[in-house]
Amino acid sequence: MPSYQAPLRDIRFVMDEMFDYPSHYAALPNGDDASPDVVNAILEEGARFAREVLLPLNQSGDEEGCQLEGGEVKAPKGFKEAYQQYVEGGWPSLAADPEQGGQGLPHSLAMMLSEMICATNLAWGMYPGLSHGAADALRHHGTDEQKATYLTKLVEGVWTGTMCLTEPHCGTDLGLIKTRAVPAEGDAYAITGTKIFISAGDHNLAENIVHLVLAKLPDAPEGSKGISLFVVPKFMPDAEGNPGERNGVSCGSLEHKMGIHGNATCVMNFDGALGYLVGPPNKGLACMFTMMNAARLGVGIQGLGLMEASFQNSLSYARDRLQMRALSGAQAPDKAADPIIVHPDVRRMLLTQKAFAEGGRMLVLYTAQMLDIVEHGKPGEERERAETLLGLLTPIVKAFLTEVGFECTNEGVQIYGGHGFIKEWGMEQLVRDARITRLYEGTTGIQALDLLGRKVLMSQGESLKVFTKEIHKFCKAESDNPALKEFVEPLAKLNAEWGELTMGVGMKAMQNREEVGAASVDYLMYSGYVTLAYLFALAAKQASGSLDSEDKAFYAAKLNTAQFYYQRLLPRTKAHAQMIQAGADSLMTISSDDFGLGFEI
Amino acid sequence: MPSYQAPLRDIRFVMDEMFDYPSHYAALPNGDDASPDVVNAILEEGARFAREVLLPLNQSGDEEGCQLEGGEVKAPKGFKEAYQQYVEGGWPSLAADPEQGGQGLPHSLAMMLSEMICATNLAWGMYPGLSHGAADALRHHGTDEQKATYLTKLVEGVWTGTMCLTEPHCGTDLGLIKTRAVPAEGDAYAITGTKIFISAGDHNLAENIVHLVLAKLPDAPEGSKGISLFVVPKFMPDAEGNPGERNGVSCGSLEHKMGIHGNATCVMNFDGALGYLVGPPNKGLACMFTMMNAARLGVGIQGLGLMEASFQNSLSYARDRLQMRALSGAQAPDKAADPIIVHPDVRRMLLTQKAFAEGGRMLVLYTAQMLDIVEHGKPGEERERAETLLGLLTPIVKAFLTEVGFECTNEGVQIYGGHGFIKEWGMEQLVRDARITRLYEGTTGIQALDLLGRKVLMSQGESLKVFTKEIHKFCKAESDNPALKEFVEPLAKLNAEWGELTMGVGMKAMQNREEVGAASVDYLMYSGYVTLAYLFALAAKQASGSLDSEDKAFYAAKLNTAQFYYQRLLPRTKAHAQMIQAGADSLMTISSDDFGLGFEI
Repeated sequence: MPSYQAPLRDIRFVMDEMFDYPSHYAALPNGDDASPDVVNAILEEGARFAREVLLPLNQSGDEEGCQLEGGEVKAPKGFKEAYQQYVEGGWPSLAADPEQGGQGLPHSLAMMLSEMICATNLAWGMYPGLSHGAADALRHHGTDEQKATYLTKLVEGVWTGTMCLTEPHCGTDLGLIKTRAVPAEGDAYAITGTKIFISAGDHNLAENIVHLVLAKLPDAPEGSKGISLFVVPKFMPDAEGNPGERNGVSCGSLEHKMGIHGNATCVMNFDGALGYLVGPPNKGLACMFTMMNAARLGVGIQGLGLMEASFQNSLSYARDRLQMRALSGAQAPDKAADPIIVHPDVRRMLLTQKAFAEGGRMLVLYTAQMLDIVEHGKPGEERERAETLLGLLTPIVKAFLTEVGFECTNEGVQIYGGHGFIKEWGMEQLVRDARITRLYEGTTGIQALDLLGRKVLMSQGESLKVFTKEIHKFCKAESDNPALKEFVEPLAKLNAEWGELTMGVGMKAMQNREEVGAASVDYLMYSGYVTLAYLFALAAKQASGSLDSEDKAFYAAKLNTAQFYYQRLLPRTKAHAQMIQAGADSLMTISSDDFGLGFEI
Repeated sequence: MPSYQAPLRDIRFVMDEMFDYPSHYAALPNGDDASPDVVNAILEEGARFAREVLLPLNQSGDEEGCQLEGGEVKAPKGFKEAYQQYVEGGWPSLAADPEQGGQGLPHSLAMMLSEMICATNLAWGMYPGLSHGAADALRHHGTDEQKATYLTKLVEGVWTGTMCLTEPHCGTDLGLIKTRAVPAEGDAYAITGTKIFISAGDHNLAENIVHLVLAKLPDAPEGSKGISLFVVPKFMPDAEGNPGERNGVSCGSLEHKMGIHGNATCVMNFDGALGYLVGPPNKGLACMFTMMNAARLGVGIQGLGLMEASFQNSLSYARDRLQMRALSGAQAPDKAADPIIVHPDVRRMLLTQKAFAEGGRMLVLYTAQMLDIVEHGKPGEERERAETLLGLLTPIVKAFLTEVGFECTNEGVQIYGGHGFIKEWGMEQLVRDARITRLYEGTTGIQALDLLGRKVLMSQGESLKVFTKEIHKFCKAESDNPALKEFVEPLAKLNAEWGELTMGVGMKAMQNREEVGAASVDYLMYSGYVTLAYLFALAAKQASGSLDSEDKAFYAAKLNTAQFYYQRLLPRTKAHAQMIQAGADSLMTISSDDFGLGFEI
């Protein structure tokens, strides 16, 4: 069975040493509760829960999967008990608003717990994970009564939530949904339609499930402007607020999937189910984005957790497995062969995992500070800046970390060799689980359009400049620091090139909108690599200043990882830059009819 | 269910128009039988068999898997009947030596059938596929008696073969094997040991199974110099050559795998099983490479088949699925949304699949000509040249086509969006099946060491020069051709850079052998991209000369694909070139103990 240790030393390096989270928390209105001692205690207790409770259920959950029996879904053995422990431990309410019974701790802290949960049992983590999006939507757009009825239960964790968006004929293009909502008794609506791919759509972990459902009102405008959001409980709350009568919503079937077998991915049938409007009529898409943005960061963290899990186990295998001698001569002459960690190409794969996991953690914790400020900071310039950076970085967190997360879980399989393909070792499960992260909550292609089209170009590049200016400032300040030369020089060049490439696409896009889509995914990947380069330069600065400390081996390894990143991963920007500039013609010239002429005769 | 049409038009383009296979076959001693009519008939009949017999069993085989009952392995439903049809159709003997009952047709032809089989049912295809390696070993190294007893049955297909190499503690490093062979009655040896990952190790498709087994003789030298090869039948042949008594070899268990569920991957227990030495004592590794080289080409073709399958279905989905409007305005205003093939990023993914599949087919058919000449050509300069090119290209075929094959099957999932993750659509199965191809018959890392260390550097770069000279000659000949300028100019530069990078690594490797391993995988990928660039330039030349023909749409699409390849895939060489030059320090500085300091506290 795979093992896992939460990367607490690395988390502390990023939180305390790089980004000064203690001061950041102290400056938040709710920050007093997040003292360093409390933060450490929560991280350590979360690490224990993930390792001791969730990890042992990961492979068994994958093998067993979910069962639909008599219209009710059962999660794999042990999932319900683990969830009870989670609720009893008060974990669901950690970062929730005290007004609804939450503990009011910063979101950034919850995100590090989320990394640990995703690293040990992604399928389980999605049951509580989906509740956050539903809770966010109700907190921002729900009535007081809805908050009292549903939100407090979600915060407590005794009920869980879902996001019911996708239908068989539409996922990305929600303007096409067919689910209808017609006025029923009182302020209720009767919701009818079929939703698919509903994660945690039905299960036996919680006593009730709160569905947030997109549907169309009668005479709603066509397309995305005619979508409304409804809250639809599985059991109608009774007078005391407890689950009462069964509502007209049920799981029609479970999807058979490549991975995340322990999570119930449901086809949900709404047969005149009673629901209540959340937010204004026909403004459901805007309300949905409240759920979606948090969910997107959450999926990026899934990528991070999975690559950390793959890295840790690959490292342990590479130290144990004896195979061949080092090219330069035996390193372990007393053994039958050398451990494979001596081989340069195995190290290349391990360092790829290490660099992306550590880089991803820095990216998440950098972005999480912005989220804390947006959620809790005072209105003003700092919060506006944080909003801009959060908007810019959210698609990068989501898509870049899931793309490289998939790559890293595959490196894990490769390091294990043939054993990586065998289920018992657990490495192939990480690949199968990681595969969905590139798809749900908006594919990589959708994130890339959000980044380049919506965030960067619609602001005339201003949102990007907020970030590139920060990088520029850093490069300038460190330009005479010989210890950082190997980082700052290439970073400064890339930072300038990033602006030029953006301008180039922007100019072309004024002539032809297809240029945005033609450049977008390469642009997103390029942006991710440069962002991590900046963060690794910050890390190198911190580490190079601590090489004389007691923990010098840690800092030297951090510096090595930064060097590896710059020398072995950052060169990928060269390819992406050229592809960004290749333009739309390289994609649009061939006609749809002519793609298949090699086999369609 | 996924659909499939063999890419006959494209195969004919590469065979007839690019590489003049009719003349190539006519020049082979056995070429008279391979007339264009016969070739076409065989390809068409093979296409029908793959589509009508194998494809319908692919998803059911994946779902059902293999069963071990009472010591006997059962393949999924329908597999046995399909195999009977295959044998009755005479397919196993297609390219086999007439001396052993084969039809003596060229290997290159069998390789195109293999593409179709792998595209429609990889798990099934491995049952007959493994027989080829066993047959090759017996043909080259077996005694006349062994040939009469085993080889004729393998050629006929009534028996199948295996390659029993790997043991629990060793896969790559076969010098470590523990299986023992001690002299028994007559010329027999008693073989004892455990082999793992034995594809088609046991099954109910054929009446007998011929295991080719690596084992150590008593007092054999240590390591890889003390390995011998044995033939070990499942049932001892009786006096008439029919399966007689059960031998002491059996399947101990079936592996639980990520993919290729329809193929039985067995733990094989040899308990004093009777076997016979193949080739000289202690020379088993050399004999094994006879099996291995053919198998490596075969695995590359698996990558090709899987990406073609993924491409064809992705294309059909992208034409059908309606989602969003084109960025530049509605393309199908009569429909609720545009088909997703209008979106540039979907086209980028489709063209990536198309370019790699067509490029891979050219690479296989270029290499296959070398194989034909090596197998059937007269001794002399041409055959020596073919041997050199075959040796150089085999690791590229194996590793490059499986790496990009995995990428392309993943693009298939991505094009399907969330549906790609759902089993019913069949796209995720292609990913799971493709995952093993990067591992077995030598991982990508092992192929890369073979290419850079053994083939290129051990020949002082001479083997590479044979190929780069051919490319240079082409570039020179076409330097004034305006239609090819966009291909020939970058190709000439890359070809020169290839030599320089090789020289650079070679120089560094003289100081430090680790430099070979540090550069090897990037070197292999770089080599693959340049090789495909050369082949696409050849294709562009052929296509640009046929733009006035009746089939001009095909040639225009081929030209577009070549342009896409040069503009959107070839830039990856820039990243690989820089990583090749990064050197061993970027990987070797960090100590094995310090990799885990972020989580090991």
